[in-house]
Amino acid sequence: MEHEYSGLLSQETKEKIDNFVKFHKQNNTNVVLITSGGTTVPLEHNTVRFIDNFSIGTRGSASAEYFIQKSYAVLFVHRRRSLRPFERKFHNVNLLKLINKNEPNAPTELFKVNQSLINFNFDQLLESHQDAVEKNLILNVDFITVFEYFALLDYSCRAISSLEKNALVYLAAAVSDFYVPLNEMPEHKIQSSDGNLVLDLKPVPKMVGKLRSEWCPKAYVVTFKLETDPSLLLTKAKKSIEKYQHNCVIGNILEQRKNNVLILESNGKVTDIYLNEEKHCEIEEMIIDHLCTEHFLYKKNQPSYG
Amino acid sequence: MEHEYSGLLSQETKEKIDNFVKFHKQNNTNVVLITSGGTTVPLEHNTVRFIDNFSIGTRGSASAEYFIQKSYAVLFVHRRRSLRPFERKFHNVNLLKLINKNEPNAPTELFKVNQSLINFNFDQLLESHQDAVEKNLILNVDFITVFEYFALLDYSCRAISSLEKNALVYLAAAVSDFYVPLNEMPEHKIQSSDGNLVLDLKPVPKMVGKLRSEWCPKAYVVTFKLETDPSLLLTKAKKSIEKYQHNCVIGNILEQRKNNVLILESNGKVTDIYLNEEKHCEIEEMIIDHLCTEHFLYKKNQPSYG
Repeated sequence: MEHEYSGLLSQETKEKIDNFVKFHKQNNTNVVLITSGGTTVPLEHNTVRFIDNFSIGTRGSASAEYFIQKSYAVLFVHRRRSLRPFERKFHNVNLLKLINKNEPNAPTELFKVNQSLINFNFDQLLESHQDAVEKNLILNVDFITVFEYFALLDYSCRAISSLEKNALVYLAAAVSDFYVPLNEMPEHKIQSSDGNLVLDLKPVPKMVGKLRSEWCPKAYVVTFKLETDPSLLLTKAKKSIEKYQHNCVIGNILEQRKNNVLILESNGKVTDIYLNEEKHCEIEEMIIDHLCTEHFLYKKNQPSYG
Repeated sequence: MEHEYSGLLSQETKEKIDNFVKFHKQNNTNVVLITSGGTTVPLEHNTVRFIDNFSIGTRGSASAEYFIQKSYAVLFVHRRRSLRPFERKFHNVNLLKLINKNEPNAPTELFKVNQSLINFNFDQLLESHQDAVEKNLILNVDFITVFEYFALLDYSCRAISSLEKNALVYLAAAVSDFYVPLNEMPEHKIQSSDGNLVLDLKPVPKMVGKLRSEWCPKAYVVTFKLETDPSLLLTKAKKSIEKYQHNCVIGNILEQRKNNVLILESNGKVTDIYLNEEKHCEIEEMIIDHLCTEHFLYKKNQPSYG
């Protein structure tokens, strides 16, 4: 796969990432690399058509905000036009209804926000965002294709590896599992004799093993597993940790993923996190709260508490 | 195809469309049905993966605003999360940078807009949008899959057919050309012996002939053709008009589509519309200006001027 994504990152993007990491290394800040949203698989070189995974980046963008609350700097590697931290709150909000003129027909530059249309405090959101920007705690970088995704993952992991155990990797993106290799693209759009289009897709190479072995060996690495069958979830999560030597797998059952996740640590500890009616928060706040404690213990070389 | 999309529209959506058309029939308003954005082709029943066309709805959403300027009511049938009229202006704008507190640390409900971040007048946009809403000139309805798209196209065309020649159809959506029929979905995800995924896609049935023959016989119908080879464009556009009996085809050459289009009428007249540096407008304004004149002449049963 490397030969297919090498050269895809602009010098400008590389410098932004380098400067962000350098800044936080000087300040000894924890840095989390979050990947978010789905990757696309182009089906042709001019890329009118592509295969996509359904994901708008809900978990990744929400998680970023809670990491920032814990004073982490967030390198937010996301699918272009998927949800971004803070800005995500305007998803499904018509801005032209949200923002009103102060007084009808009055020539003024001041506007009112129709707070009744939103379920968050607009003023507080502005302040939290402004605070994150002033402290340089968020860097948004975007991808579209699975090739761009791997280029960014590779480069970002190597960049944060200099932070050693201050680095956390949180792989929430939905990565394509099948793709058309670049050099096979013309052959793969075969029009059959009956006018059908036949696509022959190859499995996407597993790159996640490289995080521990090559790209950022000391980082605390969190990955996600999505299953529809709850009985398979823990077994698969355990196998994944053993194989790739990550620190933690977050297991989602497709239909309950907004209310319940299982967190499996490399020492075998399982934590069941669920929202109930009494908890007035997003599940991502509880997940990040848990992970920050685990990351703290990892940095101290202490065994996971529990 | 009909059996694959029948039953997909909610009663609520149907009623919204019916009420919109009824309102404008009473007022004798011209109504344009605009389709915009790309359709998806689901690859599996639980739809994690799908094939998509690249289109964010630039042409459709811009065109809608210029039709509204000409006092048309717009039924805007668009891909969910693609650009919408008026709101499109905030594409690529970070709202949390655009909107600032009036005075730092002052407890006030009034906000300022950072006009330097945008290339349009915020105040004017609010007013144009508010005016369109008050006059009930815009109805947004969205689709995701190619099945939902055809369900909406079918229903909307039949709904506006009662307006007879007051109806205009403007098909700017990028519709999938190959798909997996619903009843073949399981068979079409074949994992080959070498681990590859083989997809066998069928051509999407051509439904556009139904507009003239069945759905809205008297409407003024505008379709789009996108080609990469300029020499083929006019020939293909002419064939399309002859075959489907539409009133007009707008021909785009992929790379020049933002500065130059060819408009072909059913009487053979070709109009070359292009932007140059002296024209400080969007090309959609010129296209819609032209189409509204043609639509007016069509309603009067006059031959196309020119």
